[in-house]
Amino acid sequence: YTVAVLPGDGIGPEVTREAVAAVDAAGAAHGFHVRWSTHDFGGVAIDRHGPPLPDATLAACRAADAVLLGAVGGPRWVGGAETPETGLLAIRKALGLFANLRPARVDDPALSPLKAGIAAGADVLVVRELTGGLYFGDKVEGDEEASDLCRYSRGEVERIAHVAFKAARDRRGRVTSVDKANVLATSRLWRRVVTAVAADYPDVALDHMYVDAAAMALVTGPTRFDVILTENLFGDILSDALSVLPGSIGLLGSASLGDGGPGMFEPIHGSAPDIAGEDRASPAGAIEAAAMMLDQLGETRAAGALRQAVAEAIAGGVRTPDLGGTARCSAFGAAVRGRID
Amino acid sequence: YTVAVLPGDGIGPEVTREAVAAVDAAGAAHGFHVRWSTHDFGGVAIDRHGPPLPDATLAACRAADAVLLGAVGGPRWVGGAETPETGLLAIRKALGLFANLRPARVDDPALSPLKAGIAAGADVLVVRELTGGLYFGDKVEGDEEASDLCRYSRGEVERIAHVAFKAARDRRGRVTSVDKANVLATSRLWRRVVTAVAADYPDVALDHMYVDAAAMALVTGPTRFDVILTENLFGDILSDALSVLPGSIGLLGSASLGDGGPGMFEPIHGSAPDIAGEDRASPAGAIEAAAMMLDQLGETRAAGALRQAVAEAIAGGVRTPDLGGTARCSAFGAAVRGRID
Ligand SMILES: CC(C)[C@H](C(=O)O)[C@@H](O)C(=O)O
Ligand SMILES: CC(C)[C@H](C(=O)O)[C@@H](O)C(=O)O
Repeated sequence: YTVAVLPGDGIGPEVTREAVAAVDAAGAAHGFHVRWSTHDFGGVAIDRHGPPLPDATLAACRAADAVLLGAVGGPRWVGGAETPETGLLAIRKALGLFANLRPARVDDPALSPLKAGIAAGADVLVVRELTGGLYFGDKVEGDEEASDLCRYSRGEVERIAHVAFKAARDRRGRVTSVDKANVLATSRLWRRVVTAVAADYPDVALDHMYVDAAAMALVTGPTRFDVILTENLFGDILSDALSVLPGSIGLLGSASLGDGGPGMFEPIHGSAPDIAGEDRASPAGAIEAAAMMLDQLGETRAAGALRQAVAEAIAGGVRTPDLGGTARCSAFGAAVRGRID
Repeated sequence: YTVAVLPGDGIGPEVTREAVAAVDAAGAAHGFHVRWSTHDFGGVAIDRHGPPLPDATLAACRAADAVLLGAVGGPRWVGGAETPETGLLAIRKALGLFANLRPARVDDPALSPLKAGIAAGADVLVVRELTGGLYFGDKVEGDEEASDLCRYSRGEVERIAHVAFKAARDRRGRVTSVDKANVLATSRLWRRVVTAVAADYPDVALDHMYVDAAAMALVTGPTRFDVILTENLFGDILSDALSVLPGSIGLLGSASLGDGGPGMFEPIHGSAPDIAGEDRASPAGAIEAAAMMLDQLGETRAAGALRQAVAEAIAGGVRTPDLGGTARCSAFGAAVRGRID
C-alpha cells in the first residue's frame, strides 16, 4: 500500500511517528508492506509554502491508497486568511470525503464524566456528512452584516444515509437520524430522503430526533444510540460531545471516506501546542486511526492486532499522562509494537 | 399587572394553573395583584381557529405586561404547514423577543447524570439570541435541493451581547461567547462585535469558545462557565444540554425578553402528551418561569418567595414522579401555596 502521511502541527508529528511504526510492525506480522511518504499540511505548510494545502501535498494524497493525518492548528495561525482549518476543509472537499465516521465506546465507566450507570455499555458511531451544509455554502463576510448558506441536495443526503445504514448492519442495526426538521428546510429534506433510503434496509431500525433532544440524550442516556446519522455542523457538535464520554479523547480515531478514492484517517484530539515536542502526548488515538485505515484497506486482522496491542499496553500499566500515567509517547509506541503478533 | 396566559398543549394547562395560583398567593402576601387573561396558542389554537398564533392572542400579549406560556406541540400536529412550533417562532418574532435566558444550577449533584464531583457547583446561564440566524433566514424548501440562510447584523449581535454582559455583572462576572468562527462568516462577525461590546464592561471577563469545544466542556467541566452567550441554533443545542445537568428538567424555567415590551416566560419542559391531563406533571418549572416573570416585573421579593416555597416543598418530601415521588401536580401546587409568606 501507499500511504501519504500528513503529520501537521503540534503533537501531530510525534503521534503519527508511533502510528507509522505500529503499522510497520503489524505489516511484518501480517504479511503486507506500506510505502509511506510524508507531506506538509496545515500550519507547517503555511510557514513553508504559503497555502495550508500545497498542490504537491494534494497530488500525493490523490495518488495514495490512504491518508494518515496527525493534527493541525495552533495559536500562531489564528486570524490569517488561510489557516490550518481552511486547509482541512479544502482537503475534505478536494478528496470528496463526504462521510466522517466517529466511533466512541465506553470501556471503563469509571473514567467517564457521566455516572457509571449511565455511561456503562455506551457504544455509538456518529456518521457525519462532511462536505455540505453551512461549512461549504456561500458566505458573505462583513462588519455590518454577514451570512452563511446551508444547502443540501437529495444526492448528498442519500449517499451519507447509505453509509450509515450499511454501518448499522455491522453493528446493532439501529440508525437515529438527527435534524432540526421543525425549523429548517434542509432538515425537512434530510428527513424525507433518509426515510426513503431506509426502505432499502428493512433489517435496520430508523428513528428521528431533533438535535437539541439528541444533545440531551447523549448526556442522560447514551446507550439508547447505535448509529447517529447527521449533517455536517450537527455532527461536529454531537461527535465532540460523544467523544468525551469514554473519559479520554486520546484513545479515539476518525475516518473520512469518499467514493472509491483514498480515505483520510486521524486521531480526534487536536494539535495540543502546549505539550508539542515533549514526548508526552498519547499516540493511542493516532494508532486507532491507523487501525481504522487498515480496516478500510482490508487488513482487518492487522487492525485488530493494533487495537489488541493498545488495550494490552494500557491494561499492563503503560499509561500516558492523559490516563493518569507517566509513560512517554515513544515508550507507549514501543510497548504497542512489542505486543503485536 | 396584566398577564396573558397561554396554557398551550399537553401538560401546559395543568402546570400553568398551578403557576397562576402560586403567583396569586405571592401577590396576596406581597401586596400586588395580577389580572390574568387566558388565550389559545399552539396546537389548541390550530384546532379551534386554524393558525397557531391567532390575531386575538397576539393582540392580548402585546397589551399585557408579561406572557406566561405553558408548553406547545404534540404528535397530532406534526407535518402540517402550520404547527405549534411555527406559532412559537411567530410569537418570538412578533414580540421582538431577541433574548432567551436559560439558567441551570446543580443543587444536588447526586441527581445529575454527571459524576457528582464534576457537576457540583455548576451554575450556568445561557443567553441565546432568539430572533435571528438560521431560524429566520430565507428558506428554500425542495425535494431535490433545500437551503436555509443564516444571517446576522451587527445590531442584532450588539443587543444580545449587552444582555449577556449585564447578566454577568449580577453573577460571577464572566462571559463565554460561543461561535464557530473557524468556519462561519456569521461567527466571525459575532466574535468581532462581542469583543467590541466587551470594551463597555471592563469588569466582566470575556472568552471565546468554538461550539464543538463548548459541547465537550459542558460535559467535562460545567463549572468553568458563568454566562454562555451564543446565537440562536447553538443556544438551542447548548441550553438543552445544560438543562439536563441538574437532574430534572422539570425544575427549570426560561425567559424570552425584548426591548421594553412584554417578556414571555415558560418552563423548559415540553408538552409531554403522554401524561397530559393525568395530574402527574411537575408544576415546578412553570412556577420557576413565573418567578422569573416576577423578577422582570420588579417583584423580586415575591419571586424569591416562590423559589423558596418550591425548594421547601421538595425538601419536605413533596415530590412529583420526575423526582422519584408520588405527589400530584395539584398537590405540589397546593404545597407551594401553603409555604408562601
Ligand atoms: C477544525 C474544524 C474546522 C473541524 C470541523 O469543524 O469540522 C473540527 O472541529 C473537526 O471536527 O474536524
Ligand atoms: C420547538 C422549537 C422550535 C424550539 C426552538 O428550537 O427554539 C425549542 O426547541 C426551544 O428551544 O424553545
